[in-house]
Amino acid sequence: MTATLPSNAARPALDQAALDTLFLAARSHNGWTDAPVTDAEIKALYDLVKYGPTSANTQPARFVFVRSDEAKARLAPALSEGNRKALAAPVIALIGYDTKFYDKIPQVFPHNPGFRDLFVNNPGMVESHAFRNSALQGAYLIIAARALGLDVGPMSGFDQAKVDAEFFPGGTVKANFIAAIGHGDHSKVLERLPRLAFEEAAKIV
Amino acid sequence: MTATLPSNAARPALDQAALDTLFLAARSHNGWTDAPVTDAEIKALYDLVKYGPTSANTQPARFVFVRSDEAKARLAPALSEGNRKALAAPVIALIGYDTKFYDKIPQVFPHNPGFRDLFVNNPGMVESHAFRNSALQGAYLIIAARALGLDVGPMSGFDQAKVDAEFFPGGTVKANFIAAIGHGDHSKVLERLPRLAFEEAAKIV
Repeated sequence: MTATLPSNAARPALDQAALDTLFLAARSHNGWTDAPVTDAEIKALYDLVKYGPTSANTQPARFVFVRSDEAKARLAPALSEGNRKALAAPVIALIGYDTKFYDKIPQVFPHNPGFRDLFVNNPGMVESHAFRNSALQGAYLIIAARALGLDVGPMSGFDQAKVDAEFFPGGTVKANFIAAIGHGDHSKVLERLPRLAFEEAAKIV
Repeated sequence: MTATLPSNAARPALDQAALDTLFLAARSHNGWTDAPVTDAEIKALYDLVKYGPTSANTQPARFVFVRSDEAKARLAPALSEGNRKALAAPVIALIGYDTKFYDKIPQVFPHNPGFRDLFVNNPGMVESHAFRNSALQGAYLIIAARALGLDVGPMSGFDQAKVDAEFFPGGTVKANFIAAIGHGDHSKVLERLPRLAFEEAAKIV
């Protein structure tokens, strides 16, 4: 069910509780309660993520939700020692990017199917497009999970070649980053680290 | 003001209106009303974005908010013909990434300042780390703007070298993508493009 926002009238900001859930009070998690993540929750999550914008609507991200003991055992050797704690999460999402994403352009960009040729003829554009846009989609996954009442622990400390070989066979999809998803154990959250001040990271010109 | 979410009790999902604002009914915008974007709104936006997670808290994104006529005139030659429409937006955010982000590790990762050496000694890790994490931060910017009642039109059709030369002098910051921000003219929104079904982009293992 997708509503429309047809009016130019000012739309209010989300309330403080929602901003807390998404950003202000949300934290990366290292420990997890026993509460499971269901198929329905994973599909609801994807049904938010898919609407996040990507360049030319290419949607290059490919997601594997690692949930079974058998799949977690296959993932374990690819995780750095410090990141094996992620295996205690109900689900570990692998966010990959399809380097042949352009083959779906006629489907996802139907008014300009020839846009596929831009990538076919410029292989140097493929990697950065897929990597950038799958990272955006991974960020949508983090925020969308929080919006659904889930917690997330994103990580990039893993052996990409091992993850790709185990979970993205075929050679066209590569892992970008991974994210544990579940219900966080708030007693295991670390102290929040310092953020850059506006003046250190941004300016208005 | 940052609240805490100290309890392991299940946190409810955001309500339908909030999910609509963030994902389900949100659209990329091409036209803009006259409503301005104030300094206070830009700073409130950054104060959400900065809390989005980055690997080792490195926060490599650098943001330039292009708002004055003079700065828009400098940006114009770097935009592709089809993207000049962005100049009608109150603000165009340039999302760059600092390839010397690691120099801030002692500040942002104070319990392990030596983590800086990992990047100094492995220059091949720098570009992908900065590009990935600044893309995440750019996605947080898109979603946070929507959360604040703003609309966004993200784009990657621009001349990176020209943007870098004009807005990121010094040579260490490179543009990742750009995003028009303002109050969208809903009459200018295009028909929504098809999204990949769960089975095309994801699986549970």
